[in-house]
Amino acid sequence: MPDTRFAELAFDDRGLVPVVVQETATREVLMLAWADAEALALTLETGRATYWSRSRQEIWVKGATSGHVQEVVAVRTDCDGDTLLYEVRQTGPACHTGTATCFTGREIRAHDHAS
Amino acid sequence: MPDTRFAELAFDDRGLVPVVVQETATREVLMLAWADAEALALTLETGRATYWSRSRQEIWVKGATSGHVQEVVAVRTDCDGDTLLYEVRQTGPACHTGTATCFTGREIRAHDHAS
Repeated sequence: MPDTRFAELAFDDRGLVPVVVQETATREVLMLAWADAEALALTLETGRATYWSRSRQEIWVKGATSGHVQEVVAVRTDCDGDTLLYEVRQTGPACHTGTATCFTGREIRAHDHAS
Repeated sequence: MPDTRFAELAFDDRGLVPVVVQETATREVLMLAWADAEALALTLETGRATYWSRSRQEIWVKGATSGHVQEVVAVRTDCDGDTLLYEVRQTGPACHTGTATCFTGREIRAHDHAS
């Protein structure tokens, strides 16, 4: 799906870019997902965060089944065009496990015992 | 480099995970980088954000040449262990272009003209 808006984006060899998802109110990082050109175009056109599911190999509208949708306030790209940042208003928990973010309570420490 | 601390992490087929980097004070998302197990181990041991450079194919201590180092306050993993979040205190601009973050001023809008 060629789209000249995305000419400066550097999709990887699978046609994807990682998407960092940030809650605009709290500034929390909610999750990391992936987008292809179509998911990005749909996100921009609908205002609903849309991704590419690598496991299901299909377009995925966040919250389509759970109701935990993300209203997209802004889409940014980084300096070399190979990463997106979606700034969103999250309805309900972002994580499918029910936590506010996918990073909740999952800290790795230097002293976590090695072998 | 086996490390039992990382047994639950899902490195990709290149042995990498994406790392979302967030400034702990402002909560800004600074950049996205990549880590292999060694870069993560070094980050935890030194407290300095360390990555794997995909272009140079080498370990990369952020700020080693520029002085724009990142003191790591916390390292988190996400629900399925395939993404890391480094919470950092950034010295100077995070982006090699001199902007505070790699996402500064790079918004994509729905009306950015398509072909």
